[in-house]
Parts: sequence; C-alpha cells; structure tokens
Amino acid sequence: MGKNRDVETLIRLLARLPGLGPRSAPRAALHLLKRRSQLLDPLAESMSRVAQTVRHCDSCGNITTANLCEICTDPKRMNGQVCVVEDVSDLWAIERTAVFSGSYHVLGGVLSIIDGAGPDELRIPGLLARVESGGIQEVILALGSTVEGQTTAHYIADQLEECGVHVTTLARGVPVGGELDFLDDGTISTAIHLRRVV
Amino acid sequence: MGKNRDVETLIRLLARLPGLGPRSAPRAALHLLKRRSQLLDPLAESMSRVAQTVRHCDSCGNITTANLCEICTDPKRMNGQVCVVEDVSDLWAIERTAVFSGSYHVLGGVLSIIDGAGPDELRIPGLLARVESGGIQEVILALGSTVEGQTTAHYIADQLEECGVHVTTLARGVPVGGELDFLDDGTISTAIHLRRVV
Repeated sequence: MGKNRDVETLIRLLARLPGLGPRSAPRAALHLLKRRSQLLDPLAESMSRVAQTVRHCDSCGNITTANLCEICTDPKRMNGQVCVVEDVSDLWAIERTAVFSGSYHVLGGVLSIIDGAGPDELRIPGLLARVESGGIQEVILALGSTVEGQTTAHYIADQLEECGVHVTTLARGVPVGGELDFLDDGTISTAIHLRRVV
Repeated sequence: MGKNRDVETLIRLLARLPGLGPRSAPRAALHLLKRRSQLLDPLAESMSRVAQTVRHCDSCGNITTANLCEICTDPKRMNGQVCVVEDVSDLWAIERTAVFSGSYHVLGGVLSIIDGAGPDELRIPGLLARVESGGIQEVILALGSTVEGQTTAHYIADQLEECGVHVTTLARGVPVGGELDFLDDGTISTAIHLRRVV
C-alpha cells in the first residue's frame, strides 16, 4: 500500500540492474521522480534511443550504431593485430589503458558446458573467417584467467594453428600494486614459474 | 574510444542514479543492452509512463497518478490521524510496518536555512489547511531525529498550537536489536532520560 502501480513496475525493473537491489531501487525511483526534466526524461529517451539504434558490429561484435564500429572503420587501427575479448566491457577496459592500437574481436562469452555455450554461440566462426580473409598477423587472446576463459583460449589457438598467424596471450604474474601476502597461491606459483631475468 | 556516443550518454545518465557510479554504470548499460526485450525496452517504457502519469497527491503530497492518492481516497484510512513525514520514502517505510492506519502528509523536505527551504517551499500551509478544515484529531510528527527534522517538528507544533489537535512525535530511545556499545552518546542519554517503569 502507498506505492502506485506504475512506480512499483519502475522499482521492480530498476532492481534488476546490477548495482541496484530491492533496497536501493525505491530510492533510485524517487530520485528519478524528483528530477524529471534533468534525469528521468533524458534517461527514458536515451534508453529508447539505444534500444533502437545500438547493434553489434558485423566484423568484431563491438556495440555500435552502424554496420561496422568506430574501431573497425578506423584505418589506423587495422595494423594486423586483433585482440580477442570475452565481452564489450573487456574491450572498454583495454581501451582505457590506451596501449593497444589494433582491432578487437568480441566473442560475446566463453565456452561453457554448464551454460551450453559452444563455439557457434560465440563469435568464433567470425574470428576464423576474419583471420582467413588475410591481413591479420597476430591474434592476442585477452581472455579471463578462469577455467572457461583458458579453455576458450586453447580452443581458439587450436583452430588458428594452421592459419599461419602469431597467437599470443596476456602476460601472467603479480598485478601492479599487488602484495604477495594478499595474492592467491595460483598467482604466486605462476609468477615464480614464469620468473624473468632482471 | 570504443564507446558509442548514444551508449556514453546512457552511461552518463545511469551514473547519476543513487547506488550506481562511474564504475557500475557501464556495467549496468551493458546489462541493459544484453537484455533488450526483457529489461531495456520495459524500463524505457516504464520511465516514460511514470514521467507522464505520476504526480503529487493534491491533499497529502504522496506520489499518485490521480488527483488524490490511494491512501487519501481510502475511507478506512480517514481515522482522524495524520502522520507528517519528510519524504515519500519515509511514507513507504512506515507503510512497510503496517502499524499505522491513518493518512499522511508529505512535507517534501525539512526546514533548512542552508538549502533555503522555508515553510512555503514545504507543504506546511497545506497541512495547516487540512487541520483547519476539520476531522483531524491527532498529528503525528514522524520527522528525522536531525537538527533540521526537529526544527521542522517544533515549527509545525507551534503552528498547530491553537488548532486544538493533539500533536505527537515518534518515541525516542534504543532501537530494536541495538547494542548499547554501538549506540551514540546522544541516543543513550536520551534513553536514560526518557526511561520507563518496567
């Protein structure tokens, strides 16, 4: 009682966003209702717009409003390097560092028996087609260091074996700012195993 | 680079919601984009709908889609008790307990010199008009235990002094489940001062 049905629908939907929950969604709904012209209207419009315009890049799977994304249409980024990532959020994370100047390939997930995600559910055939069409010298597998991520990386590396491209993966070891005391045993043993000459 | 302009607008707006921030807004945006038909479309529609339909109750200031809210139009809740709260979220908090069966009056804030909120910015004149029009025996001041909340409560109590209504306020003391060790000195001294016979 006390809540309007429209407002309850809004709260229920807001509660499904990551970061919001049943306690913070009502607060977010009231926040929106208090700021109609500054926040509620623009956000509703932005969502409708994004729902209508945003799609996946035909080449790499990044999100875009055109057939090809900004990165795939930038001739400066066609340097023969393709970085394979699980998701668009990983692409954004790498773009934040501004150290990679090649193009991407977003798989849209990793191989997972539990989730029933096989190679055809991901964009692996698209990656193989891109490599086969030529112009790519190096495929960097920037997948998570989880069992599924590494299984996917091995599967892709196997598929690319006869394509004659250089297949690399991200370095493993102690993260920057990481204190040994707080690191898990797997990371420490990997860092010892892959130790380098100073 | 890498983010589309429409998506960036969505992220910027999402980051202004309480509970979300610059780190979690991109995650929420991707979550929405992955669940277009289940979440993005319904949420956009719900927001447009709420922006168009939801307004404040003419009588109590609660949010509603009609001229008067569900509580003000419920004859069972016109029992002569009016509970004065700062905001709609406080009304929802009291409704959750299901112990109050009267009606509400939502001030829309508390008196604050810093924020420049005087009695006319709040719904205090509306409250006085409701009391003067008769039928109300008790006004319960359920305002926060802050300086501004208590100033507002005193101001309203002063204004209602000659109206012949019973003005009450929420009990103060140790919260349920509260351990003395973790309570602030103000609450403990209030609880000692207002101690009751067992």
